[in-house]
Amino acid sequence: MKSREVHLTENFVGEIKPDYFEIEEVEIAEPKEGEVQVENEWLSVDPYMRGRMTGVKTYVEPFEPGKPMEGGAVGRVVKSKSDRYAEGDYVFSMYGWREAWTAPAKGLMKVDADLLPPQTYLGIAGMPGLTAYVGLKRIIDLKEGETLWMSAGAGAVGTSGIQFAKAMGAKVIATAGGKEKCDLCRELGADAAVDYKATDNLAKAIRQAARDIGSSGIDAYYENVGGDHLQAALDVLKQYGRIAACGMIARYNDDRSVPGPSNLVQIVAKSLKMQGFIVMDHIDLNEAFVKDLSGWMMAGKVTSKETIYEGIEKMPDAFIGLFTGENVGKMLVKV
Amino acid sequence: MKSREVHLTENFVGEIKPDYFEIEEVEIAEPKEGEVQVENEWLSVDPYMRGRMTGVKTYVEPFEPGKPMEGGAVGRVVKSKSDRYAEGDYVFSMYGWREAWTAPAKGLMKVDADLLPPQTYLGIAGMPGLTAYVGLKRIIDLKEGETLWMSAGAGAVGTSGIQFAKAMGAKVIATAGGKEKCDLCRELGADAAVDYKATDNLAKAIRQAARDIGSSGIDAYYENVGGDHLQAALDVLKQYGRIAACGMIARYNDDRSVPGPSNLVQIVAKSLKMQGFIVMDHIDLNEAFVKDLSGWMMAGKVTSKETIYEGIEKMPDAFIGLFTGENVGKMLVKV
Repeated sequence: MKSREVHLTENFVGEIKPDYFEIEEVEIAEPKEGEVQVENEWLSVDPYMRGRMTGVKTYVEPFEPGKPMEGGAVGRVVKSKSDRYAEGDYVFSMYGWREAWTAPAKGLMKVDADLLPPQTYLGIAGMPGLTAYVGLKRIIDLKEGETLWMSAGAGAVGTSGIQFAKAMGAKVIATAGGKEKCDLCRELGADAAVDYKATDNLAKAIRQAARDIGSSGIDAYYENVGGDHLQAALDVLKQYGRIAACGMIARYNDDRSVPGPSNLVQIVAKSLKMQGFIVMDHIDLNEAFVKDLSGWMMAGKVTSKETIYEGIEKMPDAFIGLFTGENVGKMLVKV
Repeated sequence: MKSREVHLTENFVGEIKPDYFEIEEVEIAEPKEGEVQVENEWLSVDPYMRGRMTGVKTYVEPFEPGKPMEGGAVGRVVKSKSDRYAEGDYVFSMYGWREAWTAPAKGLMKVDADLLPPQTYLGIAGMPGLTAYVGLKRIIDLKEGETLWMSAGAGAVGTSGIQFAKAMGAKVIATAGGKEKCDLCRELGADAAVDYKATDNLAKAIRQAARDIGSSGIDAYYENVGGDHLQAALDVLKQYGRIAACGMIARYNDDRSVPGPSNLVQIVAKSLKMQGFIVMDHIDLNEAFVKDLSGWMMAGKVTSKETIYEGIEKMPDAFIGLFTGENVGKMLVKV
């Protein structure tokens, strides 16, 4: 069986050019005992892949020129020599940037393509969606009628989180940087969106937004940012407020000497709970998540925003398009 | 019925003198419908009372010269015109600094003098003890074999917390200021005690203490202090560590501009949980607490440290003694 796959011609920094990519046709091996052969149907392009193209080793290995790249993919099993998968099953894998592949069944993840469109497992039903869900359901335990502040509302976690919180019956105030991102948050259902770049008093802006939407105050804060956002959250949260922290992106590049919020004593004064988490520790929620999500999508409460390019040869264009703003929502390539 | 009670002769600041107190004999009214008459058996003197003697209104009303002062007391009901109490019942009240009193039954708290010695309800079985218990049981959920760092180990909450954590099967590292306080912590059962005044690297000293007692690291931190203690805790806590915060005393007098810990991102990096609480929100645990505490005391695992003066006329001496270090453990007056 033949498959086309995308290689880098060289590692690079700076502007991305189509010349850095080439398509090659290869022969796919027959599956051995314990292996499956899969035809990819959907391929993901993600901004983080940019770092792997530079050739510099960070927390993941760099992509090597002349070899197939990796990335999220959803495909259909066409041949199986594993008890785990039957022909016709859909699987999520990291064997993206290629049309087909053969690999051990162990380490793949089965997805239910009857419940949700298969490509959603690369976006809203995938890791970013589950991260949003875990934070809201388990860490915050968001209740109907409560008010949530979703930070980084236009990000991968934020766009899911806004929709899920609305579907759960909460009021949502989103923050994002710039008018366009705030418009997106409102379009996704946020009751209010605050442009943090356009205010010098974030706490005051959040309190005003809460009054504007008839909320009695902020019950919970979804922390993706840190820094001035966390400081404002500690100030505006109500008694017994909850903070789910899955990222403090403003802090990642800091020198260690950058001080934390000066109002941390609010945790004691208002009996707040703040909890950090990583999604991998809460994979047990995935089943409930997929069930809730399919219900919400069928009821029209949650939509998967996608921009779709067709054909493996469009992978470089799709990837480059991420950085020139060609996509609304999740950028995908349909094989 | 006659009762002697202690009055202030005047409000004062600075050094406390016996002249500021006088004993007066008064007639106690017969109880009316819904009231009880109680003979106090145990009276509490506490450092916080000092503030109420200055005549300055803070978060509580100041004591007025010529009137009976207030304070924790445990007494026996001698006459009851209330369904809530029978003669012979023991009650905790704030009608201290006097031998006997008549008051509405509503607002008193019944205590079980068969389960625990009545005076313990002013100390280890009272609010400081319950605060320690709630933090360990509900907020931290301390498990057998885990290692707890108890800050302010020689304080009212700390002395209880060290003993309770040991009774729960945990290893305990206590911190306190000075050799004497550290000796007290060890005497109460702490596996290690670190004098925070004698180290310029608290995190390193805690890690060393953990190694010394054969612990694999700090699972939980009981926060009473804030500041450099919290910074060190965020550094030394293991993955999934829990922080119970019932006070950050180092922060209470701070100007708002004092920065928080620079390593708060550890909450995300190590999936930590930090939760503030006040004991009044967890009064539902009191029954389980009294039951556990009586079991621990009968088994000799927990002891109530008390210094006892006898007679209402010794109340001023007992109170003054608090500030000259006359007490080991809880300072009490037996009527």
